Amino acid sequence: MSDVSAVKALVFDVFGTVVDWRTSLIKDFTKWSETSGIEADWTALVDGWRGVYMASMDEVRKHPERGYQILDTLHRRSLEKLVAQFSIQGLSDADLHYLTLGWHRLHPWPDSVPGLVRLKKKYIISPLSNGNVALLTNMAKFAGLPWDLIMSAELFEHYKPDPETYLGAAKLLCLPPEQVMMVAAHNNDLKAAQQNGLKTAFVARPTEYGPHQKYDFEAKGDWDIVAKDFGEIADRLGC
Amino acid sequence: MSDVSAVKALVFDVFGTVVDWRTSLIKDFTKWSETSGIEADWTALVDGWRGVYMASMDEVRKHPERGYQILDTLHRRSLEKLVAQFSIQGLSDADLHYLTLGWHRLHPWPDSVPGLVRLKKKYIISPLSNGNVALLTNMAKFAGLPWDLIMSAELFEHYKPDPETYLGAAKLLCLPPEQVMMVAAHNNDLKAAQQNGLKTAFVARPTEYGPHQKYDFEAKGDWDIVAKDFGEIADRLGC
Repeated sequence: MSDVSAVKALVFDVFGTVVDWRTSLIKDFTKWSETSGIEADWTALVDGWRGVYMASMDEVRKHPERGYQILDTLHRRSLEKLVAQFSIQGLSDADLHYLTLGWHRLHPWPDSVPGLVRLKKKYIISPLSNGNVALLTNMAKFAGLPWDLIMSAELFEHYKPDPETYLGAAKLLCLPPEQVMMVAAHNNDLKAAQQNGLKTAFVARPTEYGPHQKYDFEAKGDWDIVAKDFGEIADRLGC
Repeated sequence: MSDVSAVKALVFDVFGTVVDWRTSLIKDFTKWSETSGIEADWTALVDGWRGVYMASMDEVRKHPERGYQILDTLHRRSLEKLVAQFSIQGLSDADLHYLTLGWHRLHPWPDSVPGLVRLKKKYIISPLSNGNVALLTNMAKFAGLPWDLIMSAELFEHYKPDPETYLGAAKLLCLPPEQVMMVAAHNNDLKAAQQNGLKTAFVARPTEYGPHQKYDFEAKGDWDIVAKDFGEIADRLGC
């Protein structure tokens, strides 16, 4: 482990790192279908939805003249396309809204909240997520995530892994990048954070994508901390 | 009381409304002078410092070509002028930094934290302050303020009472302005919030400016709630 004694703030990737979006959404929609009567292969829908996530953010990146679009908007747009592709019938506008807000109702991995509570005693803790501010705020209240503040790609009008997000977070905290540590279950996120001068901590979430997981079973970089869960990050940082 | 049943989020002015900046700074600096050996009329310095607060933000408003300056920067600049005016001797750069960060070490009014804890159960609670993000984050950890997120003038690059702050807060929360309530001890802040469509709650802080208090002893507007403290706001909102 390199010297992380100067670190003052930990910023967290959220989808997959802090919360189990896949299991949460599949359970939420399956339960909802019992009362709504809407039938669909919810597992396939959720996997398809996440499958177009990167492409939907790339569209924003490619077309700055259209202005920044928050993730709720991208989620809704992708959902409408998938509903047509999957021929899901009978969804009202309110139903589409409910499903889109499913991304606000995600459950944490079992170690997330206890780990964050420990880390919060010594560090500033914040998401640094592509989710928009309202999404992350609602999720924190739903899941009991004890953030000190909410930092989102929305604040910088750039999605990760654009440098503006990592450097923007450090700037808002009035800290040099090396006093900020990015925590993520995704090697590409950490690589970008490290390239921008942040410290890095990797935690594997090997079931994030269920049977479709292809990457990120293990650390693939020279990260400052590699841990099995948030509790081990707290151990390593002396919390 | 008008209909506030649709309100989802409460946003708070901080200096004077949530924290007692004057008593906190005078005590902090007086205690610090015992170890630092720096002598000054700290009460006069603090009153003078706050006395140039509005003018320092007006400078930013008048000169958009210079770019937005965060409150830490304005505080530091004002302090340097006051130190010269008051002929305070022997201050190092580190001392000036310590004094400037005094604005991060402010104590809450006695009812603030218990009131916020109650309000947080039903509402999203956030500062909406001219303090910068790092200042508000550090203060929250110092004072135990249980914010759900941190909203600052810095995020909008506009100081209150510019409309961009009130409307920007509602936009980040993905709420229409009428579902956001501004809580403040200052009638002018509430007036601007109301003009931009927010709901309003006034709480009197008649000792904020000590013997120099001239305004805001009582509500001077048609506010949705007028309360004696945060506990009464929680009562009125059924928390």
